[in-house]
Amino acid sequence: MKITKFTIQIVFILVLFWSMFLVSSGLCADEIPSARYVFFFIGDGMGLASINAAEIYTSVNQGSLSEPAISKLNFTKFPILGLCTTYAADGFITDSASAGTAIATGHKTNDGVINMDPTKTVTYTTLAEMAKEKGMKVGIVSSVSIDHATPACFYAHQSSRKNYYDIACELATSHFDYFGGGGFLQPQGKEKDQPDVLDIARKNGFTVVTSKDEILALTPGQEKIIAINPSLDEEKAFPYAIDAKQDDLTLADFTRKGIELLDNPNGFFFMIEGGKIDWAAHANDAKTAIADILALQKAVDEAIQFAQTHPEDTLIVITADHETGGMSIGNAGMKYSTNLHLLTFQKISYQAVEQYVEELRKTYPEGKLNLAEMMDFITENFGVTLLTDADRNILKNQAEEGDKTAVEKLALTLTPDEIQSLSEALLLSLQEPKERPQDDQSYLHYGGYEPLSITLTRILDQKAGIGWTTYSHTGIPVPVYAQGAGQELFAGYYDNTDLFTKFTMVMGLEPVGVGK
Amino acid sequence: MKITKFTIQIVFILVLFWSMFLVSSGLCADEIPSARYVFFFIGDGMGLASINAAEIYTSVNQGSLSEPAISKLNFTKFPILGLCTTYAADGFITDSASAGTAIATGHKTNDGVINMDPTKTVTYTTLAEMAKEKGMKVGIVSSVSIDHATPACFYAHQSSRKNYYDIACELATSHFDYFGGGGFLQPQGKEKDQPDVLDIARKNGFTVVTSKDEILALTPGQEKIIAINPSLDEEKAFPYAIDAKQDDLTLADFTRKGIELLDNPNGFFFMIEGGKIDWAAHANDAKTAIADILALQKAVDEAIQFAQTHPEDTLIVITADHETGGMSIGNAGMKYSTNLHLLTFQKISYQAVEQYVEELRKTYPEGKLNLAEMMDFITENFGVTLLTDADRNILKNQAEEGDKTAVEKLALTLTPDEIQSLSEALLLSLQEPKERPQDDQSYLHYGGYEPLSITLTRILDQKAGIGWTTYSHTGIPVPVYAQGAGQELFAGYYDNTDLFTKFTMVMGLEPVGVGK
Repeated sequence: MKITKFTIQIVFILVLFWSMFLVSSGLCADEIPSARYVFFFIGDGMGLASINAAEIYTSVNQGSLSEPAISKLNFTKFPILGLCTTYAADGFITDSASAGTAIATGHKTNDGVINMDPTKTVTYTTLAEMAKEKGMKVGIVSSVSIDHATPACFYAHQSSRKNYYDIACELATSHFDYFGGGGFLQPQGKEKDQPDVLDIARKNGFTVVTSKDEILALTPGQEKIIAINPSLDEEKAFPYAIDAKQDDLTLADFTRKGIELLDNPNGFFFMIEGGKIDWAAHANDAKTAIADILALQKAVDEAIQFAQTHPEDTLIVITADHETGGMSIGNAGMKYSTNLHLLTFQKISYQAVEQYVEELRKTYPEGKLNLAEMMDFITENFGVTLLTDADRNILKNQAEEGDKTAVEKLALTLTPDEIQSLSEALLLSLQEPKERPQDDQSYLHYGGYEPLSITLTRILDQKAGIGWTTYSHTGIPVPVYAQGAGQELFAGYYDNTDLFTKFTMVMGLEPVGVGK
Repeated sequence: MKITKFTIQIVFILVLFWSMFLVSSGLCADEIPSARYVFFFIGDGMGLASINAAEIYTSVNQGSLSEPAISKLNFTKFPILGLCTTYAADGFITDSASAGTAIATGHKTNDGVINMDPTKTVTYTTLAEMAKEKGMKVGIVSSVSIDHATPACFYAHQSSRKNYYDIACELATSHFDYFGGGGFLQPQGKEKDQPDVLDIARKNGFTVVTSKDEILALTPGQEKIIAINPSLDEEKAFPYAIDAKQDDLTLADFTRKGIELLDNPNGFFFMIEGGKIDWAAHANDAKTAIADILALQKAVDEAIQFAQTHPEDTLIVITADHETGGMSIGNAGMKYSTNLHLLTFQKISYQAVEQYVEELRKTYPEGKLNLAEMMDFITENFGVTLLTDADRNILKNQAEEGDKTAVEKLALTLTPDEIQSLSEALLLSLQEPKERPQDDQSYLHYGGYEPLSITLTRILDQKAGIGWTTYSHTGIPVPVYAQGAGQELFAGYYDNTDLFTKFTMVMGLEPVGVGK
């Protein structure tokens, strides 16, 4: 056969069709795109209701008062939605340790256990360790102490989440590239008689930076970094977003810096935890939880910006380890009404009120302070007011005439029942904590929190239309949002242990499973 | 150019490649498979927590007490999961009328309005009407009265959901093929002075069947059927599944019969509502809600069986119009524990207790009945017991020695606080309803229900680890589950109005939108 011009044309056409076929088949195949840059955000305790509350709050805060609408958060706009069961090996309500273990290793364990089996004899390898083994860089950031259960579940293996020093030592001797955010709870051990964990880390090649300037000055190429926020509370956690000062470093700052440090051709696995959403939900403080969800949203923004420059091989997943508080949009007192706009009047967290009350106890050691004397502080920070019947009637008339400001002022007026609750709570709060009643009824009322503090947030949440059922976690499934390479894997209804499998598939990790 | 054997080969190869390309492109295209047989199940008030509670209950009821696990329901096994916002035009907490309107027409409206705009001047066309217009058969089934808001939203157009007679007249003059389940609330109008709606229906070509035998005898080919369950409560709704007699017709029966009647080559749109899940959740009665969810599951089974014979063109979607009760798996008293197995001891609904209490009031008109005298009834139907301190101590010892039966008996023992609550509730329940206090505190305690009844379910739910925040609906998003032709459309996070669009796309309906 001679090679004619005609034959060349035919061969050309054949090749063309063949490549078209390959391209279209490739698009069709159910192959999982491999993700080189993997962001995993965990909103600790961030259940469906709290995410929805943040969406509604964002909407009403933007002034859309007359017509209900939600403003989706950046991550609730993600194309993929999943739902994840969270139960532990020893109960339907998980804690952060068993939930973190399930997610990071694919194994159910008992509450309180970190990456070990329920008998505490077998040790599990984590996602993050497998990613490191594969040659990816690994970063772990949390707004709570970096030895807390959730971050620990990516690098530590302990029979108890309370082994803070042992957890910290595992961090200090790890090969991870970047730890950022909160500090260490027991850097020298429980009895303060052990070698300082930061010294161990330095000996192991880590650079430890603890000032804002140093942290911001970190540059790409620097390896093995521990960056601790200089602005931390007593529990070595960030201040709540609602309480933070203008120039405090944020979760978004630690995320942005992490991206700079971790970015490399072999890719990275980067876990970022918004850890105090959970704490605020434990205290049934909706506004503080929402503000911390919005702070997490800002951190997610950093990942979204990075993904825009690497759209083909970046995956962003966000979920919660469990729900906290049994929150809902609706309570018995408000029936079918909600008024989340009232939450804009809350300016400080329950924690800030606790600190204020502690000062009050020193100023009024005999407890001689009545509610009226505290109303300036209360109104300034929670919006609620004491009104005379006459003033109330004026407002009622204005409200009936359609005056929206009057309607809102009326909604913020304390009812006789609320005044009584606050007065009782103030009386208790002025007593030393150990002198207060410790019975079941007191727990149901105050959940072990400062009575005045939790009564204030309860009253505002009540008026806003938020409901809570518990001061602990709950067992209901949590949503999962995903965007990017391999996102489809994260759709549907599955167990938290499946998250491990999905991540290993999308990152091409060896699912080693058992054994460190 | 001569046509040689070689040329023919080349042309053959070209054609082969071209068809391969076409086939693979076709597979890739985002075309929506058209669904000819569409099942749409609505669990009224069936939020995420209640579905999860039904999954946990199924699991623990099967004896898996030691190791937590969920037993997925048939529909939570569906491949597609979505999440749906439910807010109304006039509030974040919807009712069934505005939610039904959003789903059936794609338009937000005010609570209480059925398929009209908030000004009550514009009328919207429903999904079901559009399906009928296209030549599909249409069936509407509900376990509550067939003129109730949710079913009405598929065929009626009214300024108020309370226009029961007008709604019923729209049903009677509709061209739909099958109405089944509950009865009519005002068949002769509010004042009983209007033509009977069943007569109107018969004149309009409907066959009305009201006995079990007649209903079961209906055969394929019979058209325009109204089949009313002979076993209905005062509100023309089915008895709760937990209270139903062995030979009562079930939601599954009406679904199976509907499939027989609606099956035809042009396809059908079949809406089936589990309407009393909502009512049980309003009364904060977890076991009764779960039992009705399991009854809905059985109805879904019928659709799944049908789909097995028409896998290519059947779509099954299940969702809720809203959440009710602010339910959660977890409450303040139980902290991190749950014990849903205790719900197996509840044998009757709150409604059955109400009927029992009504009889008691007649027997003891002076209210002279104490709790101890009622304990046989209470223990038989709710498992909880009054124990002497001595008996309790014996149980405690046995429980400490690992006796599981003793542990459960102990969990079912009434605490002094619970005994007091029950005694107070009994005292109130023996009074005539109109003589009881009507203040806010009473509402918060009893939600307008029979005090003894709601206190009993509250105590059992409390011990089981269930929490509630309200006697009304809540605003949190509800899950959507889908399986079959066009299922992909139902994944992700969207608004309830988008359900309308998705159904019109998958059924190839003209989205007329405004105007009847």
